[in-house]
Amino acid sequence: MPLGEKSLIAEIRRLSDRRRGAVKSAVRLGIGDDCAVLDVGFGKQCLVTTDFSLEDVHFRREWHSPDCVGHRCLARGLSDIAAMGGTPIAAFLSLALPGDLPQSWVRNFIRGLTRLAEKFGVTLAGGDTAQSPDKILADIIVVGQVPKGKAILRSGARLGDRIFVTGTLGGSAAAVLQMQKANGQKLKGAYPRHFYPEPRVNVGLALRTKNVATAMIDTSDGLSTDLAHICEESGVGADLSAANIPRARVGSPAGEVDLNLALHGGEDYELLFTARANEKVPSNITGVPVTEIGQIVRRTGMRIRGADGKVRSLKPQGWEHFK
Amino acid sequence: MPLGEKSLIAEIRRLSDRRRGAVKSAVRLGIGDDCAVLDVGFGKQCLVTTDFSLEDVHFRREWHSPDCVGHRCLARGLSDIAAMGGTPIAAFLSLALPGDLPQSWVRNFIRGLTRLAEKFGVTLAGGDTAQSPDKILADIIVVGQVPKGKAILRSGARLGDRIFVTGTLGGSAAAVLQMQKANGQKLKGAYPRHFYPEPRVNVGLALRTKNVATAMIDTSDGLSTDLAHICEESGVGADLSAANIPRARVGSPAGEVDLNLALHGGEDYELLFTARANEKVPSNITGVPVTEIGQIVRRTGMRIRGADGKVRSLKPQGWEHFK
Repeated sequence: MPLGEKSLIAEIRRLSDRRRGAVKSAVRLGIGDDCAVLDVGFGKQCLVTTDFSLEDVHFRREWHSPDCVGHRCLARGLSDIAAMGGTPIAAFLSLALPGDLPQSWVRNFIRGLTRLAEKFGVTLAGGDTAQSPDKILADIIVVGQVPKGKAILRSGARLGDRIFVTGTLGGSAAAVLQMQKANGQKLKGAYPRHFYPEPRVNVGLALRTKNVATAMIDTSDGLSTDLAHICEESGVGADLSAANIPRARVGSPAGEVDLNLALHGGEDYELLFTARANEKVPSNITGVPVTEIGQIVRRTGMRIRGADGKVRSLKPQGWEHFK
Repeated sequence: MPLGEKSLIAEIRRLSDRRRGAVKSAVRLGIGDDCAVLDVGFGKQCLVTTDFSLEDVHFRREWHSPDCVGHRCLARGLSDIAAMGGTPIAAFLSLALPGDLPQSWVRNFIRGLTRLAEKFGVTLAGGDTAQSPDKILADIIVVGQVPKGKAILRSGARLGDRIFVTGTLGGSAAAVLQMQKANGQKLKGAYPRHFYPEPRVNVGLALRTKNVATAMIDTSDGLSTDLAHICEESGVGADLSAANIPRARVGSPAGEVDLNLALHGGEDYELLFTARANEKVPSNITGVPVTEIGQIVRRTGMRIRGADGKVRSLKPQGWEHFK
């Protein structure tokens, strides 16, 4: 059954109405007018982020269930809010769908998205719909808030700061490699965080309210690329220790991923942050492990000390999704 | 030359940096971090709208110059802010481009967009980029503000209110028909407002600050569809007079468009609003003509009195762009 724009809006509306009753929301007016109207708290600033989820670029229909695509779509935006130390408020979804897409796909996509939204108290407050020629195109916009002047920027890292990362790295890229090798065969339970990444919103909030982080970014493009962003925006360099990079354990029996995957693989949605040398940084924040991986240096560029004790230059290698 | 993501971001950054110096902006932090950070004024609410501009759905590369596509892309969002009586602050652009698109196309697209942004004091504050398989996909997000509780909603129309529209209707749809007939041949100067619609931001602001409008929407989908939205959200009906519908003059020599185009043609981006029966509504607001076209009635549904004096039912006929 071809998907009508009306039925999609009705579906989103039904799901958001259910939520609206449940929790007091900052969304004064959602779907059904020219704009959404949001309350931003007194003394707060507004955070805005937008992220595409494009079929065959960010996901594949044969690998990712609609529920998982919806979850990942919103997770990308929430992770950006987390990386500023912000509180997410509302999400907006622009969705272009092929005419022959089964309605069940859309329903499950919206379910995956709204389930994650509910978990973080986010209202799906609007968006746009269109018909696309052949592929599924989603653009998620997340609006959040942060006390004025308190957002944790990429530009705050200083000489001597230590570098930390939450969780483990390389697991999502390893899961993609596994699927590529399996040539489309379903690999259930392979690495759940690839399919249902949990944005580190609570860790970001804790780091901001306790004034721990001096600079922060989420690892969506891979450690080497994201750390390069911090270095560039802060005008500093970084030294890492390969032995300290927390690598994801993937597969059955589970083994640590390759160092290269941990350094360059994207879509882990962990938080990468810096803290002053004398700052006490817990090894676990809101249940998420935190690992020290290196330090900020004056000389620009990034270097890594390998297991052999040799120091090598580390270049950012942008994560190319499924290309 | 294939377009790199980096060069696009650099181009946007260059253009927004130029602007940032020129005008004091509410954008505290734009491109170059995980989120943009916006100041929302004291006692203000945040408005958010998102609109797709998809190749072969909303524009055609052979009909619309890149400059014009960029202009129309932002105009769609600004028009939504106008329809709430809001002030636009910032825009976010998600852009997916085919790998073989000439860099000049992108440069001119961004120019068209930023020129309109500058005109309305809007900063291009972020977005996302991706490679698309074959077609150009843009999603524009515009954030604005409005004094708390003062946004003009679709739901405010009451029995006895009179119905008004700015400018003229049907011109944009007539321009599309002309281009379809000309089969891709350039028709320069045919109907400039189709190619460079001017969002009615100043009219919307005037209607809100002077408490004139009780309900408002922009005519992006066509009068019949947009008026139906006001009726539905307000729980009322509407009677129109065909003789009073201001029809665009298109062609050379210029002639008035067909009534059907004025009733159902989309993308005119005029403002459709209601005002109390005793409200004095000027026939010209900030240089834009305003025409009374009917009134709000208790009975649901819409009717129109024709030139022959007969009253007929008026059904919403959604505008389908180029399909």
